[in-house]
Amino acid sequence: MSMMNAIVMQDGEVTLQQVELPTPQAGQVLVRSLACGICGSDIHITRHYSEVFSFYRKLGVMPEGVDDHAPVMLGHEFCAEVVEFGPQTQQTLAVGTRVTSVPFLLSQNGAGVGVTPGVNGAYSEYFILDEALLMPVPDDLPSEAVALAEPLAVGLHAVNRGEVGVDDTAIVVGCGPIGLAAITALHLRGVRNIIAADLQSEKLELAREFGATHTVNPGEQDEVAYATEIAAGNRVVIFECVGIHKLIEGFVKRAPAKATIVVTGIHTADANINYAYATVKELDMRFSYYYQPEEFAQCLQELAEGKVPWRKLLTGKVGMDGVSGAFKQLMKPNPHIKVVIEPWRNGELETLS
Amino acid sequence: MSMMNAIVMQDGEVTLQQVELPTPQAGQVLVRSLACGICGSDIHITRHYSEVFSFYRKLGVMPEGVDDHAPVMLGHEFCAEVVEFGPQTQQTLAVGTRVTSVPFLLSQNGAGVGVTPGVNGAYSEYFILDEALLMPVPDDLPSEAVALAEPLAVGLHAVNRGEVGVDDTAIVVGCGPIGLAAITALHLRGVRNIIAADLQSEKLELAREFGATHTVNPGEQDEVAYATEIAAGNRVVIFECVGIHKLIEGFVKRAPAKATIVVTGIHTADANINYAYATVKELDMRFSYYYQPEEFAQCLQELAEGKVPWRKLLTGKVGMDGVSGAFKQLMKPNPHIKVVIEPWRNGELETLS
Repeated sequence: MSMMNAIVMQDGEVTLQQVELPTPQAGQVLVRSLACGICGSDIHITRHYSEVFSFYRKLGVMPEGVDDHAPVMLGHEFCAEVVEFGPQTQQTLAVGTRVTSVPFLLSQNGAGVGVTPGVNGAYSEYFILDEALLMPVPDDLPSEAVALAEPLAVGLHAVNRGEVGVDDTAIVVGCGPIGLAAITALHLRGVRNIIAADLQSEKLELAREFGATHTVNPGEQDEVAYATEIAAGNRVVIFECVGIHKLIEGFVKRAPAKATIVVTGIHTADANINYAYATVKELDMRFSYYYQPEEFAQCLQELAEGKVPWRKLLTGKVGMDGVSGAFKQLMKPNPHIKVVIEPWRNGELETLS
Repeated sequence: MSMMNAIVMQDGEVTLQQVELPTPQAGQVLVRSLACGICGSDIHITRHYSEVFSFYRKLGVMPEGVDDHAPVMLGHEFCAEVVEFGPQTQQTLAVGTRVTSVPFLLSQNGAGVGVTPGVNGAYSEYFILDEALLMPVPDDLPSEAVALAEPLAVGLHAVNRGEVGVDDTAIVVGCGPIGLAAITALHLRGVRNIIAADLQSEKLELAREFGATHTVNPGEQDEVAYATEIAAGNRVVIFECVGIHKLIEGFVKRAPAKATIVVTGIHTADANINYAYATVKELDMRFSYYYQPEEFAQCLQELAEGKVPWRKLLTGKVGMDGVSGAFKQLMKPNPHIKVVIEPWRNGELETLS
């Protein structure tokens, strides 16, 4: 039995382990991971695994017989290369082709790659993808850029969920990877007023490089009032990209009439809301999760066309034996936007300038 | 100074009082009330005036210097006739013309007729409307039917907010006046699957007469699961027409993926929600309040064309000295759908068969 290196989350700890090399089944392909982003949700599940698993159980998406101690092989933002085809595959791509994919296995009931107990993730030397979902990657796009297509797609999907028009005023609250991805999508769409809101001035400067036309610090000024003023009567769309769902209550109270609130990310704790504010102002609340394959492909294309200043997103790189330490750093306040793991090498977290 | 009869809500009591006859100002018309529906919100403000006023203050829509003891002259679902034109009016309609209007005065900063302290309502012998908003009423449409255009417009607006298509499956939870109005709008739009949900079997029977294609009793069966089954993969739109906002929490948990929840009515107390359910299912929550003038006009037109079995909505009539007693009855469990006040006469609440 061949073994490989993989990062495993278990009981809230992220460790480098030797695990069995997976075998591609019908319609599947074994791929070698070239680069994989660390997502905020990877940090979240590590910190709150019991709460997340309990929510999965309520939803009925937790595999049978899996308890809170189940190991999860993380990694769902990746670039990989084709190693070996399973049975019943077309094999139109050559072995060695660089690829990416939406992180789902239709061949396994839509299981999520890098989030579901029992399914390999891309924080591993090798993992499994569906042949039917493979997207070959442009030659001149570095693997670490390809890994950014996934978070960019989350932002694009949120903007699509918000049905933002060019005359609308969008305010993106929280300028981490998802917020910056939303700003990127708004900018590429040609939205006139794109307001970035964040407590950190460095994030606001960064947001301008991704297309924000205005910036506001919610610690100094009511960011929703600011957006309302800029909108001058046009529709306001508020993107919650902080991941603190307590913020939504305030958005509902402060949003102008006819505003849309787009909620990204997932928070499993109960929240408070006073619906009367939403009613008298006829708000829309739209919840956004993942993306469609075509949105993912669009982001990959935009990266390839040089439309996204992706190097500004990429703040760190780490090898396999450095991931455990990197997680400890990322769980504390830190200056990183996106850290990419290179599973084919070792090395501590290195900050890119 | 001329006086007239008016129903006044003060400190949670509804009484018949003598008040000053109002004088139409620039652009306004004095009208005589011919029929005025008792709305659930009239009952709600009477029961919870302090909470509602406090919410108005938070919103900043409470007129200056008005405390919780402010009298409110109720009545916003009406048919009236033109009595006297104020200055700066066009006077294209003859005195005596029967009219209705959306219950707002643009001439008074959009103040709501029959809901705002200091503004006359249609539970009075006479009240004030804007000339510019008057809609003349078809001759053969009885005044009590005209008074139903307003609640019908609330239902139509909710359906429009939900952007319900003919292939969607709509479930209307709560078959009071607003629920039946929503069912009417869905039926006239040609929506294939219209599910009525109510704890009372009489209401469900009535819902069928307004166009419901299926009925379900949420006391016996999970109404959302039932709708999901009927939808067979098509979009589900859930209308909350009970006015109990605790229900929304359950809809969010039980709604199928990509469902839309349309919230009608207004509830000023804090509610709980677990946003994670909304996120992983990508729900839309749309809040609906009032209607557009063209929606109101559409409902009046549909009534005139005989498309709405409006007599089945109308369960009671009452004269001015019977209103106080009628409110006491309507605050308890009762079989009424819509009771109409005829402010030009006296008489106790009479149940129509």
